[in-house]
Amino acid sequence: MNDIPQVPPLGGQDFSKKLKFGVKQPIHGGNLHWAARQIGCHPSLILDFSASINPLGPPDTAIAAIQEQLTALTHYPDPDYTQLRLILAQEHQIPPDWILPGNGAAELLTWAGRELSQQDLTYLFVPAFSDYWRTLKAFGAKVETRLLNWQNEPFCLNLEGVDGKNAGILLNNPHNPTGKLLSCDQLLPLLDQFNLVVIDEAFMDFLPPNEQQSLINKVLDYPNLIILRSLTKFYSIPGLRLGYAIANPSHLQQWQQWRDPWSVNVLAVAAGIAALQDRAFQEKTWQWLIEARQQLWVGLATFSQLYPFSSSANFLLVETQQSSSQLQTLLLKQSHILIRDCLSFPELGDRYFRVAVRTQQENQQLLEGLTMIFCN
Amino acid sequence: MNDIPQVPPLGGQDFSKKLKFGVKQPIHGGNLHWAARQIGCHPSLILDFSASINPLGPPDTAIAAIQEQLTALTHYPDPDYTQLRLILAQEHQIPPDWILPGNGAAELLTWAGRELSQQDLTYLFVPAFSDYWRTLKAFGAKVETRLLNWQNEPFCLNLEGVDGKNAGILLNNPHNPTGKLLSCDQLLPLLDQFNLVVIDEAFMDFLPPNEQQSLINKVLDYPNLIILRSLTKFYSIPGLRLGYAIANPSHLQQWQQWRDPWSVNVLAVAAGIAALQDRAFQEKTWQWLIEARQQLWVGLATFSQLYPFSSSANFLLVETQQSSSQLQTLLLKQSHILIRDCLSFPELGDRYFRVAVRTQQENQQLLEGLTMIFCN
Repeated sequence: MNDIPQVPPLGGQDFSKKLKFGVKQPIHGGNLHWAARQIGCHPSLILDFSASINPLGPPDTAIAAIQEQLTALTHYPDPDYTQLRLILAQEHQIPPDWILPGNGAAELLTWAGRELSQQDLTYLFVPAFSDYWRTLKAFGAKVETRLLNWQNEPFCLNLEGVDGKNAGILLNNPHNPTGKLLSCDQLLPLLDQFNLVVIDEAFMDFLPPNEQQSLINKVLDYPNLIILRSLTKFYSIPGLRLGYAIANPSHLQQWQQWRDPWSVNVLAVAAGIAALQDRAFQEKTWQWLIEARQQLWVGLATFSQLYPFSSSANFLLVETQQSSSQLQTLLLKQSHILIRDCLSFPELGDRYFRVAVRTQQENQQLLEGLTMIFCN
Repeated sequence: MNDIPQVPPLGGQDFSKKLKFGVKQPIHGGNLHWAARQIGCHPSLILDFSASINPLGPPDTAIAAIQEQLTALTHYPDPDYTQLRLILAQEHQIPPDWILPGNGAAELLTWAGRELSQQDLTYLFVPAFSDYWRTLKAFGAKVETRLLNWQNEPFCLNLEGVDGKNAGILLNNPHNPTGKLLSCDQLLPLLDQFNLVVIDEAFMDFLPPNEQQSLINKVLDYPNLIILRSLTKFYSIPGLRLGYAIANPSHLQQWQQWRDPWSVNVLAVAAGIAALQDRAFQEKTWQWLIEARQQLWVGLATFSQLYPFSSSANFLLVETQQSSSQLQTLLLKQSHILIRDCLSFPELGDRYFRVAVRTQQENQQLLEGLTMIFCN
């Protein structure tokens, strides 16, 4: 992808001179275009620790499925997304009409935000993913924040004084950016306490099946429960956009009336169907993560200036004595490595950063980049 | 794409037995999955006249650009869509921040509908694309309909008694499903009359440049004007989803807060950038359409049971003495040809159908299919 626009003049005014995009600090990870502009290099030369994407993917099976579907671009997607829903139905043992594919989990978050805004109040634990704020503001939700006690052991939610009767709650499990995991037992009481419970399980599939703490199997019993899932992180296809919601069909049918009929493109559908059946890729990912996360955590902990927190997800939150935006700039300039500052999480600010777990070799590159900074 | 779900059992319950999708008559064209299910064949065996897609595409340049970008799937899209906006800016001679790419024009229609709903009233000319109703209902817009006098010559809008002061208007030019074109001169007075004017120009690019009646060059002067454009129809990539809006940045910045940051996938971006620069494909399409539309119109007009209307777009509306849903079923069963009934346009109903203009050879197949029906 070429970040430095090279548009052949088509006659008339040359608008590339007037370009004002991308000069602001990005509020999301994975903005390689912004980073590349900062140092005047091609985005492909940057090693991206800022987006929490599986470094082993995309699976070959998904790429092959995309190639096969290139001839299908001339047709609209099946608005029922029949085949993808069936695969997901088998996967989660939930009827297909309790599942709605989306143009990334981010699109579904928009509609979940609209539902939450219909409650008198929405409780949000902070630090929270900035897109939660975007969607809640977009529909005028009244929001009350609670500080997540993520440094406490055992990790738990402080719900003192919360009245969930006419209220919703939006939670992330495992939590981004801390990587902390709530157990099903901790979450279950919320279903009786709150009028609407939205759980973003975007990173849950990185846990081996026997360690996952998903509430998907409670959806059939609780019409007030909505689960959001991403397929882009585990299967490394954020460029393609694919996620899904699992909830009572009354929610999902409403969302389908809110959004257009063809929200998910046919290549994402094909990639998703193939990837969800790729057991070898899944096993390899679970195996990689356990080892590589441990290696990265140990490596980071050797720096006296850094304090990495333990994590159940494919990323680590790190406390730093030095400004994280300074660190980000230094790593970018010296090593072409991009880390995620935490400025978009006001409760964390400039003394924290987040790094994805990547391959052991790439993790080593990050550790060497940090060594260069801290030993100078 | 396989319409008959063949999902390998992953253990547990087999949900394919409980499938309830796709049994209803579709309200949009291009639902090959539904059609294939009706006659128990593979969707690829159906000749689709129901979706108005350029039969010459996708351009080879777009497919090559997609192939090249398959390695970029592991990265999030550039949330600024810098390069695509620049190409569109050059194309239309409009600054890049007056342009917003979307996940198909249909996604942008959702946000246009939300803006319209903030007006006291929205005027809608009927028959209207059913997705207009979807988006206006989604945000609780108050709608007043006016009958389009599309059978009158010269074609014009009847705005008698309309008060546009606190009102919006949503128009389609050229109009779907009639193919009728309003001139810029006919549209310009609306900009002073209405508080908000949304013009869906999804089929405008099918007209040769010197015949187009686009209001894009009025956007800089009128902050109350929003133009929607599709790239999926002309470039034959409806499966990939790509459109854009052109309007004052105050609208588009608001929409970006309403929707998620990565709404357009990287392959659609790549295909769009390549296709917009493919002058040879554009010329070929304009040339094909003039000849093939004339051939199809003449062919349809030879049937005494049919009355095809003249059209500025890549489709023809046809009045029929026989029920159009019966005709649809017969054509599907006898010839594996899918036409678009007009049941989703209540003002037209069962005595009208719409057909895309396809290649001359394919148009001939349709004419032969109709001959078999009418001569039996």
